[in-house]
Order: sequence, then C-alpha cells, then structure tokens
Amino acid sequence: MTKVTAQMSISLDGFYTGPRDTQHPLDMSGWMRGPEAPGFFRVTRWVVDAAAWRERQGFTGGERSVDSEIIEETFAAAGAYVMGRRMFDAGEFPWGEEPPFHAPVFVVTHRPREVLEREGGTSFTFVTDGLERAVELARAAAGGKDVAVAGGGELLQQVLRAGLLDQLELHIAPVLLGDGQHLFGPGLGLGADDGIELVPTRVAATPGVTHIRYTVTGRSKLVLDDRGASGELVGPGRPEQRSAL
Amino acid sequence: MTKVTAQMSISLDGFYTGPRDTQHPLDMSGWMRGPEAPGFFRVTRWVVDAAAWRERQGFTGGERSVDSEIIEETFAAAGAYVMGRRMFDAGEFPWGEEPPFHAPVFVVTHRPREVLEREGGTSFTFVTDGLERAVELARAAAGGKDVAVAGGGELLQQVLRAGLLDQLELHIAPVLLGDGQHLFGPGLGLGADDGIELVPTRVAATPGVTHIRYTVTGRSKLVLDDRGASGELVGPGRPEQRSAL
Repeated sequence: MTKVTAQMSISLDGFYTGPRDTQHPLDMSGWMRGPEAPGFFRVTRWVVDAAAWRERQGFTGGERSVDSEIIEETFAAAGAYVMGRRMFDAGEFPWGEEPPFHAPVFVVTHRPREVLEREGGTSFTFVTDGLERAVELARAAAGGKDVAVAGGGELLQQVLRAGLLDQLELHIAPVLLGDGQHLFGPGLGLGADDGIELVPTRVAATPGVTHIRYTVTGRSKLVLDDRGASGELVGPGRPEQRSAL
Repeated sequence: MTKVTAQMSISLDGFYTGPRDTQHPLDMSGWMRGPEAPGFFRVTRWVVDAAAWRERQGFTGGERSVDSEIIEETFAAAGAYVMGRRMFDAGEFPWGEEPPFHAPVFVVTHRPREVLEREGGTSFTFVTDGLERAVELARAAAGGKDVAVAGGGELLQQVLRAGLLDQLELHIAPVLLGDGQHLFGPGLGLGADDGIELVPTRVAATPGVTHIRYTVTGRSKLVLDDRGASGELVGPGRPEQRSAL
C-alpha cells in the first residue's frame, strides 16, 4: 500500500541547514559561500560518502555500507515525489538533464508551468491547487510504491501539519551546529498542550550517522502526570533490542 | 578515569521542556499548570515508567527494561554531580529530606550558602567561583567515578561551551512538540563555520525512547565540500551494527 514518507538529515541539535541565505536563493556559487552551506554539507556528509548516492549522481567511488543500503532502499521505495517550490527552484539547474529522482515529481507552487520532462524518468508537474492535491496526484502516479516528500523543510512541516505523513526517517549527524534552520518548529501549528506522536520502528547506527525510522501516529494531547506516585504506568516501555556501535 | 558526563531527555524536535514558565519558577503546583510542564512530562515519561527511577524515588512498580537498566547504570556511574542554580532552586523542596542523588552535588551559583547535608549521602555545596571550579571540586569528590552534569539545560550548554564535557547521552522521545526550550542553541557560542563534533558510541532502541551515547570530540571547523565530484571521501562511514525494533 502506498505510504507517504519523508526522510531528512539533521544535526543533533535539529538543524537541517545553516541560517537562511537571503542573498543567494538561486545562485549556486553564491550560496556555497553563504551561511546555509557549512551546516548543510556537514549534516549530509554521510550521503556523499555512500556508493548508492554517488552512483545516482554519476560519481565514482563511495562506500558500500549500511548508510549506502539505506539510501538505496529510500530511492527504491519511492514511486513519486512531492516537492516544495523553493527546493525545485534551487535544484532545477544543478540537477541538470538527468535529475536523481527517476520518477514523477509534483511541485507545490503558486506559479502555473508546463510539465517539465527530464531524462531517466524524472518529470516535474507544477501543482497550483494545494498540497493535498499534489499528494493525491503523486499517489496516483506512484504505481503502488511510496510517495516521498523530497523537501524542503517547510514542505515537510506542512505535510506533517496536514496529517498526511505516514513515515518519517531522520538521519541524525553527530554534530552540534548551534544555529541554522530547524527542521521542526512553529510551522507544525501545535498548541502548548499538543504533540505529534510517533513510534520508532527501526534504528540503524553507524559511526557517521544514526538513522531512526518512525511511523507517525498523529496529533495527540500531552498529559500531565503525578511523577509516578500513583503506581500507574503509561507509555509502551517494553524492552527491545540494543545495538552497540 | 573520571569522565564528565551528561544525559538529557529531549523531544524529536530538540526540546527538553515546554516554553519557559516565568510566572511560577518556584511554586510547584503553579508550575504544574504552566507552559513548561506538558512538554517536560512527555519527554521524561519513559523515566517514570522505569523500575530503577521509581525505586530511587521510593515509589513501587515500574518496568525492568533496557530503559530501566540505562537509568540504573547512569546513577551507578556518577560519583558526584554539578548542577545549575535554577535547577537546585526548583528541586530543593520537592526532593525532600532524601534527594535522589546519593552523592555530593556542586551547585554553580552567585549566592554563597553553607553546605546543605541531606540523607542518603546527598550534599549540596554552593560554588561561587565558577563552573570550572565546580567541576574541579566534583572531580575530587567523585572517588574515581564520573562527574555527572545534573542539569538544567543552561548549565549543560555552558559545560559544552567550555569544552569540559566528555560524554553526552540523549534520550530521544518519539514526539514533536513544536515549541519549548531547546536543549542546544546560541548558548553554545558557535560561529557560523563551527560545530561541536561527537562520535556515537552506543545506541539503545526501545519503543518509548531512543538512547544515543556520544563521546564529545570537540569544537571543529565545518568544511564545504564539492558534493562528491572529486571522488574523495570524508568522514568515518564504516558499516556497523543495525538494530531493528
């Protein structure tokens, strides 16, 4: 059954990139010298090292590791993508004639545009009637595989907020950046007593990154407790496997 | 050899508690109704379920699980504690005659005060000449065991910023809170091109929480890369064990 999935690399303090670059939104060489780049490259470094990513980009080398297997699996599971307009704008030219998606991509935007066909099976369809519609079109195009939220961070928050996300995988890079753009925040639209609950379903640990996959349970009220004095128990708490690095 | 360690429970979006309660800093029943409590109780719920924590508090029940083992291990490893003034103020009365530390605690504060002796081996020493001095006194008192940073979040950032922390364990609760107090942020004093690097050494996965233990490597310059086009590899990237939930 088609799931809506997302995966992102973040620092241990929750940033997916450095502080927003307002000067060079579309100029790649300017962006490389701007504030976003150092954080972005650090949190995605594990990707660049992996054979599966390098092959998709047409680069040689890379390591065949658990990290690489996870990238391979991520590409293989996606039958279609949903993407934010800002990410599309930033990627259109750097991705070139054969973007790495090899599947239909639905871009959520306010600007109508003809479908853009690229080599290797990638097409970009510009959806101007909202996120839900883009997800619906992607579902229909996914051929039974998953719909993956390609990014960026803002779109991911919108998908979570709308209750459309089934599975989230975070790749946590072992670094503290101190500043940058948080993947999650007020954009989730949560009140003071609300949370979005998830259940971890897989953890894969390598020296360069910790991959945690979650099933999204959904929005739920946060409850106060009496610090255990009643003897009542809450939460799952069952023992499970432990992996040692 | 004595290490300086810290461990904290955080949400998946990096909050260790809800938004700061400025109205009830010392009034526990007011605090319970304030904005901090729902987030704090959610991220620490796994602790309340665990037998090892309940025993320390004099409560019955609880589960003997990997979570409980980790709490037991954490208490057993600490020979002395360093604590922030705000956390001491909030805890002094709720902890009662027998606080759960059972070891000397060094409180970093600007207000001189006599040593406070409590039952069960806990004492509070008020250190007015700085964090480094408090850590030094705790090292001397730890009897070869570890010095644990008891909290709160501000003190933990100061310890990291000063380069005094050897080991950090985060307990990541599977919930997004959207708002609250970030455990890490500008208090780390990192520039745009700086990060604090860590190396994950153990991951323990349970349905209620993911425990990741890190060795702190220290401050390091973030480097730009060329997205792999050179064929050069950076980072550790070796394959390692994977645990399934």
